[in-house]
Amino acid sequence: MIIVHHLTSSRSERIVWLMEELGLEYKLEVFQREPGGAAPPPMKAIHALGKAPIIRDGNVVLAESGAIVDYIVHRHAGGRLATRPDSPDYAQYVYWLHFAEGSLMSLMLIALVLSRVPEAKESPVQARILGRVALMLAFVDASLAGRDYFAGTEFTAADVMMVFPFTTMRHFLDYDLAPYPNITAYLGRIEARPAYRKAMALAGPGSGPAR
Amino acid sequence: MIIVHHLTSSRSERIVWLMEELGLEYKLEVFQREPGGAAPPPMKAIHALGKAPIIRDGNVVLAESGAIVDYIVHRHAGGRLATRPDSPDYAQYVYWLHFAEGSLMSLMLIALVLSRVPEAKESPVQARILGRVALMLAFVDASLAGRDYFAGTEFTAADVMMVFPFTTMRHFLDYDLAPYPNITAYLGRIEARPAYRKAMALAGPGSGPAR
Repeated sequence: MIIVHHLTSSRSERIVWLMEELGLEYKLEVFQREPGGAAPPPMKAIHALGKAPIIRDGNVVLAESGAIVDYIVHRHAGGRLATRPDSPDYAQYVYWLHFAEGSLMSLMLIALVLSRVPEAKESPVQARILGRVALMLAFVDASLAGRDYFAGTEFTAADVMMVFPFTTMRHFLDYDLAPYPNITAYLGRIEARPAYRKAMALAGPGSGPAR
Repeated sequence: MIIVHHLTSSRSERIVWLMEELGLEYKLEVFQREPGGAAPPPMKAIHALGKAPIIRDGNVVLAESGAIVDYIVHRHAGGRLATRPDSPDYAQYVYWLHFAEGSLMSLMLIALVLSRVPEAKESPVQARILGRVALMLAFVDASLAGRDYFAGTEFTAADVMMVFPFTTMRHFLDYDLAPYPNITAYLGRIEARPAYRKAMALAGPGSGPAR
């Protein structure tokens, strides 16, 4: 059975959600963040970089959100929740699947790191990065106009990748979603999904033992 | 025919390289960076975020390195250079395919942005990020021990994603590869590939008209 090594309030909530959407069996193993927010040292014993998510499937230990999503969907679910290469939606599917970490989270992490450097507060670089975040959010919002899900009319694994930056990530990088009505309407659709609700109860930011 | 919109000294060299490895026909359209290094405004007319790479395939306009690689390999090359989900190498294939942008370039971009904030020079955040870069490079180097390519014995599209951070990216973020002998030996194997040499002549950092 696949073991999902989950770190509280982290990207690994995606993998729990994916398993619930696919109805696959898994064992959830939860790690609490250290008081400073870092992943705890035992995660390094599982994977050298010690970052969530990590899964174990027999002898395979695999990290990296996008890789785990591809692996589970194509190795264990016969391509369910993936768009097929001959579909007219395929370009959109692969775009958002990779954009989530390759562009959106990448930029949000730059903004997050800069926010932790007080000396950089007045730097023009800071203003430039925040401008880019706003541009990217507006782009995502415009892309969702007139469509229910990122790849088109169907819910796909691209949605599993794209939700985290707009939900749990906001516990780290505080920004206002109000100017983006298509994103907020989209999140409403996601939050109505039973698999999402179950996954968030198990592994969302409010889950886990009281501390 | 697929049009590859290439920005000089950028990730889009990967797409030129992929097309050469696959022997697919394409039209190369080259954009020069502005004097300050930014992508030129006409790229925004092609795709809202205005970042390279971008391809056009009929009505499809697609950005994002990983997405374009997936799209070309599965839509136009019957899965050639991709590892199949039932292969024992599949986990490694998807790992490096996503790691290239999702973890490695993401971290290098944080280091690059911080290097442009002089006020951050003495910040402990700066030291922490450089420490993480060193850890990640050591991890990549260790992962290449005893294997010829990232996914195993065969050259794959994961290699197309993984080379840029160690080659052209070093024109932006200067770091020493000497402590990583497996990476340098790997780059030697890549640089011996005719398709890579042709792609770099067409779209590598030394290519294009004298300025």
